[in-house]
Amino acid sequence: MQLKTQSLTLSDPLALDSGDALENVQIAFATYGALAADKSNAVLLCHALTGDQFAASAHPVTGKAGWWERMVGPGLPIDTNRYHVICANVIGSCMGSTGPAAQGPDGAPYAMRFPVITIRDMVRGLVGLLDHLGIEQLHAVVGGSMGGMQALSLAANWPDRAARVLAIATTARHSAQNIAFHEVGRQAIMADPNWAQGAYYASGKTPDAGLAVARMAAHITYLSEEGLTEKFGRRLQDRTSKSFGFDADFQVESYLRYQGSGFTRRFDANSYLYITRAMDYFDLAEEHSGDGEETLLANAFKGTPARFCLVSFDSDWLYPTAESRHIVHALNAAGAPVSFVELSAPYGHDSFLLNVPELDRVVTGFLE
Amino acid sequence: MQLKTQSLTLSDPLALDSGDALENVQIAFATYGALAADKSNAVLLCHALTGDQFAASAHPVTGKAGWWERMVGPGLPIDTNRYHVICANVIGSCMGSTGPAAQGPDGAPYAMRFPVITIRDMVRGLVGLLDHLGIEQLHAVVGGSMGGMQALSLAANWPDRAARVLAIATTARHSAQNIAFHEVGRQAIMADPNWAQGAYYASGKTPDAGLAVARMAAHITYLSEEGLTEKFGRRLQDRTSKSFGFDADFQVESYLRYQGSGFTRRFDANSYLYITRAMDYFDLAEEHSGDGEETLLANAFKGTPARFCLVSFDSDWLYPTAESRHIVHALNAAGAPVSFVELSAPYGHDSFLLNVPELDRVVTGFLE
Repeated sequence: MQLKTQSLTLSDPLALDSGDALENVQIAFATYGALAADKSNAVLLCHALTGDQFAASAHPVTGKAGWWERMVGPGLPIDTNRYHVICANVIGSCMGSTGPAAQGPDGAPYAMRFPVITIRDMVRGLVGLLDHLGIEQLHAVVGGSMGGMQALSLAANWPDRAARVLAIATTARHSAQNIAFHEVGRQAIMADPNWAQGAYYASGKTPDAGLAVARMAAHITYLSEEGLTEKFGRRLQDRTSKSFGFDADFQVESYLRYQGSGFTRRFDANSYLYITRAMDYFDLAEEHSGDGEETLLANAFKGTPARFCLVSFDSDWLYPTAESRHIVHALNAAGAPVSFVELSAPYGHDSFLLNVPELDRVVTGFLE
Repeated sequence: MQLKTQSLTLSDPLALDSGDALENVQIAFATYGALAADKSNAVLLCHALTGDQFAASAHPVTGKAGWWERMVGPGLPIDTNRYHVICANVIGSCMGSTGPAAQGPDGAPYAMRFPVITIRDMVRGLVGLLDHLGIEQLHAVVGGSMGGMQALSLAANWPDRAARVLAIATTARHSAQNIAFHEVGRQAIMADPNWAQGAYYASGKTPDAGLAVARMAAHITYLSEEGLTEKFGRRLQDRTSKSFGFDADFQVESYLRYQGSGFTRRFDANSYLYITRAMDYFDLAEEHSGDGEETLLANAFKGTPARFCLVSFDSDWLYPTAESRHIVHALNAAGAPVSFVELSAPYGHDSFLLNVPELDRVVTGFLE
């Protein structure tokens, strides 16, 4: 479908939660569908950890379909005949927005000199984009997984900027287990000698082996045990008996290796470090509770005028339904209108990206 | 407690499931408690993936308590005043039994020339030990996790060698998810340049970074999400606020790093490859079903004279209760006497090693 990709340089330095500031921040974004004259039909799509602005158009590196082509387009639930869909690469990432691979003030890549950012910092960048576009209030902000965190963060910190908030398969804080899986990934990257303390950009040697292991570990958390069993079970890969060796005998091994190596061709290892860190730091209740005050998630949503919709999947063990329910209870306590549904789907966390017709109906209905 | 450690060289080559054979197989083992004159009181303990023969005595490398000191000893559930407890290091491992670090026929370490072994091969080694000790029938074979696989394998393949089979927190086959987690660990090891295709023994440089990542990933699967939340939550490690860096800000990160680095001091990376491979290959139903025959786990237990006891833990997501129930149904179909209990404990898979008094009572009662 027709895509406009653009890049914006924010005119002001971006003040970060760490106390640092980023200068000359680039925001790379794509839009789909026409913006109404009164700018009332904008929908901001927020992408997940390894996502990007190419939600509904082919990825320029891999050539693969956009990550939400089944959801975004003419006549689809996020209907580009009606809505002007904006999808921006988050800061910290590597598809055109400012991240560790970008040039720092001295002209060399930031690498690990890039400041540690938060989900709120990512959203600050997105708000800068909305300001630039002159969009005061979004028709909706929509996101799954880390995209859902951004949607919630926008609602909590810039409550007038979105009339509707649709947060799918997400959480208001990373659990100890969530942090643990991310830490395994980070350690895998940092254990790769090619990582070289992050200063690998000029060497021509990237920490692909470590990044692939990180992706493999994370990928397991995106799928359900049942889904893995159904998809692969103990079936062998291109052989009729076990090799009694260390090749990928099992289909699930072959699949994971493919996921790991494919990922390294499109993603920067340092971006993986920074974005996972931002997710681990995410705790919306803590962020909105003062020192000595009880940390209550409801504080984050006090006085929000937006309508909310939360969706979880019964097979998602990364951000299980209890996490969405926790958010719903906080919204109830804050007096915000919220609808909530747990959908049944076999694909685990990745269900939000896959063929779940009931999700299509929920999205269509909520955006009306 | 009083420990006798010994090592035995099997007189015959060990025929392996791969078709290969291992010569001069060493079995390192420990015993606790006196063997009765009629040799009727022997209990074989089978250890888990990273376990060893030091079940009830300090580990010679780490100096830490044995892995089942709370279960094995005078007056304890596996009462060394009554039972002669035998615990042997499995072949493939690295605490004295023949594994990839051992000398091959040419005097150099096997490294990756070590043949890929199976759980049944490990048990073949253990049966060789029993033969050597003149123990025709064990009072019981007992094991948790991979130890439970060995206990089941003994019952299926040498049905007269144990009167009682106690299999705790285990499975009769590795699931796709189980294989996936192991594959991540193997890839982490193999991605470490120090691994050097396994030929690192002479280099003085061991693939510790990769092995630590493998251990960290596996360790997450040994704990429950609830246990991690209770033990660590989002609490910070030795600091009052986030560092906005990549140090171990969170206690769970610090804990995982400690688990990973500690493990490399006591375990051989190649052993980790071989033993995880053996576990992934484990499929007791497949092993006991002929070509073209329906793979039925009950086939494995046809005509077994042993009594069985299966124990699972409600918070174990590595080998959840459904896996034990699957085994129980097969034993029922095979007409074997079996008792089964799912215990409630918050520690996940590791519950079998931890303070679960109800487990003590089950073990005590079953061994009577």
